[in-house]
Amino acid sequence: MKRIAVLTSGGDAPGMNAAIRAVVRKAISEGIEVYGVNHGYAGLVAGDIFPIDSKGVGDKISRGGTFLYSARYPEFAQLEGQLAGIEQLKKHGIEGVVVIGGDGSYHGAMRLTEHGFPAVGIPGTIDNDITGTDFTIGFDTAVNTAVEAIDKLRDTSSSHGRAFVVEVMGRNAGDIALWAGIATGADQIIVPEEEYDMATVVSTMKDDFETKGKNHHIIVLAEGVMSGEEFAKELKAAGCTNDLRVTNLGHILRGGSPTARDRVLASWMGAHAVELLNQGRGGVAVGIHNEKLVESPILGTEEEGALFTLAEDGKIIVNNPHKARLDFAVLNRSLSR
Amino acid sequence: MKRIAVLTSGGDAPGMNAAIRAVVRKAISEGIEVYGVNHGYAGLVAGDIFPIDSKGVGDKISRGGTFLYSARYPEFAQLEGQLAGIEQLKKHGIEGVVVIGGDGSYHGAMRLTEHGFPAVGIPGTIDNDITGTDFTIGFDTAVNTAVEAIDKLRDTSSSHGRAFVVEVMGRNAGDIALWAGIATGADQIIVPEEEYDMATVVSTMKDDFETKGKNHHIIVLAEGVMSGEEFAKELKAAGCTNDLRVTNLGHILRGGSPTARDRVLASWMGAHAVELLNQGRGGVAVGIHNEKLVESPILGTEEEGALFTLAEDGKIIVNNPHKARLDFAVLNRSLSR
Amino acid sequence: MKRIAVLTSGGDAPGMNAAIRAVVRKAISEGIEVYGVNHGYAGLVAGDIFPIDSKGVGDKISRGGTFLYSARYPEFAQLEGQLAGIEQLKKHGIEGVVVIGGDGSYHGAMRLTEHGFPAVGIPGTIDNDITGTDFTIGFDTAVNTAVEAIDKLRDTSSSHGRAFVVEVMGRNAGDIALWAGIATGADQIIVPEEEYDMATVVSTMKDDFETKGKNHHIIVLAEGVMSGEEFAKELKAAGCTNDLRVTNLGHILRGGSPTARDRVLASWMGAHAVELLNQGRGGVAVGIHNEKLVESPILGTEEEGALFTLAEDGKIIVNNPHKARLDFAVLNRSLSR
Amino acid sequence: MKRIAVLTSGGDAPGMNAAIRAVVRKAISEGIEVYGVNHGYAGLVAGDIFPIDSKGVGDKISRGGTFLYSARYPEFAQLEGQLAGIEQLKKHGIEGVVVIGGDGSYHGAMRLTEHGFPAVGIPGTIDNDITGTDFTIGFDTAVNTAVEAIDKLRDTSSSHGRAFVVEVMGRNAGDIALWAGIATGADQIIVPEEEYDMATVVSTMKDDFETKGKNHHIIVLAEGVMSGEEFAKELKAAGCTNDLRVTNLGHILRGGSPTARDRVLASWMGAHAVELLNQGRGGVAVGIHNEKLVESPILGTEEEGALFTLAEDGKIIVNNPHKARLDFAVLNRSLSR
Repeated sequence: MKRIAVLTSGGDAPGMNAAIRAVVRKAISEGIEVYGVNHGYAGLVAGDIFPIDSKGVGDKISRGGTFLYSARYPEFAQLEGQLAGIEQLKKHGIEGVVVIGGDGSYHGAMRLTEHGFPAVGIPGTIDNDITGTDFTIGFDTAVNTAVEAIDKLRDTSSSHGRAFVVEVMGRNAGDIALWAGIATGADQIIVPEEEYDMATVVSTMKDDFETKGKNHHIIVLAEGVMSGEEFAKELKAAGCTNDLRVTNLGHILRGGSPTARDRVLASWMGAHAVELLNQGRGGVAVGIHNEKLVESPILGTEEEGALFTLAEDGKIIVNNPHKARLDFAVLNRSLSR
Repeated sequence: MKRIAVLTSGGDAPGMNAAIRAVVRKAISEGIEVYGVNHGYAGLVAGDIFPIDSKGVGDKISRGGTFLYSARYPEFAQLEGQLAGIEQLKKHGIEGVVVIGGDGSYHGAMRLTEHGFPAVGIPGTIDNDITGTDFTIGFDTAVNTAVEAIDKLRDTSSSHGRAFVVEVMGRNAGDIALWAGIATGADQIIVPEEEYDMATVVSTMKDDFETKGKNHHIIVLAEGVMSGEEFAKELKAAGCTNDLRVTNLGHILRGGSPTARDRVLASWMGAHAVELLNQGRGGVAVGIHNEKLVESPILGTEEEGALFTLAEDGKIIVNNPHKARLDFAVLNRSLSR
Repeated sequence: MKRIAVLTSGGDAPGMNAAIRAVVRKAISEGIEVYGVNHGYAGLVAGDIFPIDSKGVGDKISRGGTFLYSARYPEFAQLEGQLAGIEQLKKHGIEGVVVIGGDGSYHGAMRLTEHGFPAVGIPGTIDNDITGTDFTIGFDTAVNTAVEAIDKLRDTSSSHGRAFVVEVMGRNAGDIALWAGIATGADQIIVPEEEYDMATVVSTMKDDFETKGKNHHIIVLAEGVMSGEEFAKELKAAGCTNDLRVTNLGHILRGGSPTARDRVLASWMGAHAVELLNQGRGGVAVGIHNEKLVESPILGTEEEGALFTLAEDGKIIVNNPHKARLDFAVLNRSLSR
Repeated sequence: MKRIAVLTSGGDAPGMNAAIRAVVRKAISEGIEVYGVNHGYAGLVAGDIFPIDSKGVGDKISRGGTFLYSARYPEFAQLEGQLAGIEQLKKHGIEGVVVIGGDGSYHGAMRLTEHGFPAVGIPGTIDNDITGTDFTIGFDTAVNTAVEAIDKLRDTSSSHGRAFVVEVMGRNAGDIALWAGIATGADQIIVPEEEYDMATVVSTMKDDFETKGKNHHIIVLAEGVMSGEEFAKELKAAGCTNDLRVTNLGHILRGGSPTARDRVLASWMGAHAVELLNQGRGGVAVGIHNEKLVESPILGTEEEGALFTLAEDGKIIVNNPHKARLDFAVLNRSLSR
């Protein structure tokens, strides 16, 4: 392989820049030229493509966001979009592609591979909700950002004897809530993967203040359940009379300089993706499992270890959907009482 | 003076613990005993009072919040409440009081002094909206917390070409918004002290993306104007079509380990308050003006330099109300274009 | 089991407080009383022992250091010391012990178990050099602290075109250096586990500045190799003429609020240690392997999976000594050129 | 004025990038073109000069270091160097210069002005040791970085009952040590501006551990006194027998994202320097005094308010040399006992 491209797609995540840097530097160390594609698949189709050298990624490892910009581009699911992208790859003499993004991005990588341009996916999202990997790039940073914010909320809630509902991102996954909740000693963690009973939520809070003499109460709520504002309304409707505030940490979880772990993971995965391309492999996504890098076919049968299977009815089946650690929910309940 | 008490009142602010520590340590160094009062004036009335020694404030200088807890207690505006508080002071042999809090708290200090128990106020609030001081304890920390959060939002807004409305606390004052806005290179800062035209806000944003080729646009909004959600609605109603997100930094600005400047200011003011009490002075509030500590009578005439004057109709006049630095608003406009 | 004790031993590490909290809260949730022992085994022998309840560990999860204090106490290797410790356990009605510390601390736990008081070890050290676990409590925090510091050094080294030797802790292990080096894009990483050639170190640096046009060069050096000052001397002796500075990050790596990961790991391990004790198990150490908690006999045969084996000559053999990830050294070389 | 240049000189400091940004943006807003000069006066002489537009300083406000690089260049004190620099200014059509740096840099600005090219100085250094300003750009950040590091050292020193000598930068000034010392509750602060008695230092430490029952003791030492290693040796020679560690925070104080205050100060000063140039003023340095911006002639008589006066013997006299706040040393002694 003489020349590859790298792009970021979907929601941005801290560590994406570190992954791009690793792709660029590793490729150069193997004698491969690298082009950057701005704005994900949209930029690929539009030809927003430029060469990057080693210095072009200097000082990027510590930066949040993605200097290649990211975008959602559903048009790439259509053949027409794909062919336009491939036209651009040909035009620039690019033979392989690394795609850093969510699992939606993987499908584009699969298509490029099918068209003869091997593409490898790298999981980048704060939500940690991607199949085929224990951890995604950005998750550790997002959790640490949430922890720092919740630690601050605890200061003020303790001073005033208040309860807080803290909403954290995570799409449909409760991972950020679970990790940040345990790490901050949250009094309750509410995630979409687990049923909860609003009356119990209320009585637990009441009990903490009245019986246990605690001077604060923090509920970490995953956005996948509902918004913090809605949750607070339901709490009150269910009888909560405590002094209650709502904070939605929102998009601050998506930014910031990546943690050491995210930088290492990104560097490691980025280099590995280049190795795979250089072996001519495409249509696979890199993951970390049991502290080792693994790669899985993006599309295929479950027996092949593929992440997704195309069902007869045309639907896409996720073979081993990501699961949040509900044992952590149990753990937290034993530690917060 | 043989024995004094210290309490925190009103909204908590980072650095209150550093101020308490300074009061305790300075008093002990001058041979004065110190009692802590929990939960502000409410705790004073309830007799929630206990002796603190030097070790009792060890390791507190770096902690957010207030370990004496804080509360709003409007009942202390009534004579009955005041007399109940004084009963407690007598019972514990306390001769003077240091009150750390907002200007509402100063009035209680004035009353105690009038009843023969000299009390000194120290300005503690993140909002920086107190008369008689250039800066309040907690303001520098709140601004830095806002800056860190907005830096993170910039990462993700740049990656996606988005606009953000970031709501920051400050009650009716725009100080946090102005300082945090300049420090983060905000594209627009909206504060209650300055008129703005929604059509101009919209066209400035549009111009940034379309003409200037900027890849993000951040509006820092003081809560005193309206909520971020409302502002976003009005923006859209006024024709904004950009990809717009809202983040309310909320109570995270109220917590966290205080900055160096807040700790130094708190230490300095705390020690000075004890010196004033030890000179038998009460009914004054400490401030910093032109990098020097000053003290002002809480109540009196404007000529006396008093912070508040009681008008004939019984209303309280603020003599030199705090003013936000609108020159900073001008400065930011020249730097953000 | 009705009553257990918890102590911290050896060098302190961020997350020890989170582990203590988890031990206390988990035990209480299972109906077990908990006593804290100050100053490690020294305090055990001296009877510096006190009951802790649920509120006694409130707000500790985010604190660096260990509020039970730590100490090295070689006297506990002698029978006399052990018997004195057991006398204290009996006196306080304590039936089991959780020991948080380095592998030296495990031996004490083994002895207590042999004397009829089941004790469980939890790996707490920033160095990550303990057998029986992939990661120790405190390692992630220390790496992140090193990364933040090296990011700052890069700012100033870039501005001035300087080279830096940054010494990091780790005793005889290169783990902190390897992780922090990759995460900061270090130009060279020098660890005790890998040979290096000083002439190559010099020429690599020279090449970066002169051929590659880089404006900084950072060497991350594990303390297990030699001190930063010595290394700089040897560099100059080997012909380095670049503007060179040395920074020893020293003990700052040992402090600070623990990262999310260290807090989660500590909470998880602390709770698991209590479960093991409650099953009557002792003489084992908890670890994390492949993202799952495991426990290993502290002393026994290699076949039993024991961490240590007593050889016939009385020496202690480490069965699977911790190994630094030298594949990370290789990875970094491919990314830093 | 149609076109100006900006350069950074001397030791780098956090906030220099924010100042450069402000110079560029303010100038553009006034219709002035801006050129950047790399590597300070050295780059000026070498013609390392390039145009910067508004986007060229996008995203720089939050970055540590200086993207224009800095250097010490004593050759600019000679007429030959100055003329070479002026040749370059003429060649690029540059009419005025903003110099961000230490007071050494001011002299170059004075020379340029004398040669007909108005130049304005802005105080940028972490040391806060420049005449004509209450605060320098970078000082607040350095103090906060020191505070964060010393907070971490306190965690580990408390856990082990240790004493630490913490060396901080500051050249001949004790400002960083004084502010960081107060803010961390240092047990002793040793600065070059104040005599100390080693026997008292030893007895104070001994007293803290033995009489007061403190579990740690932290001495913050300004580098202007001597190195931490030397100080520790002298401490031991004077009879200190406590478990003592030395940490030199070194160059980490020079890096990092600037604090809010440094960013605001830099933005404000940068804009003001452009205003001055646009009024045709040169040979002055900007400062902040009593929370207002001021400017002082760099060279002249004391009556004119000049920072420096040329004595008859050719020596340069500093008219109002910067003084560290020794009242803070007194304050700390009353709070640390």
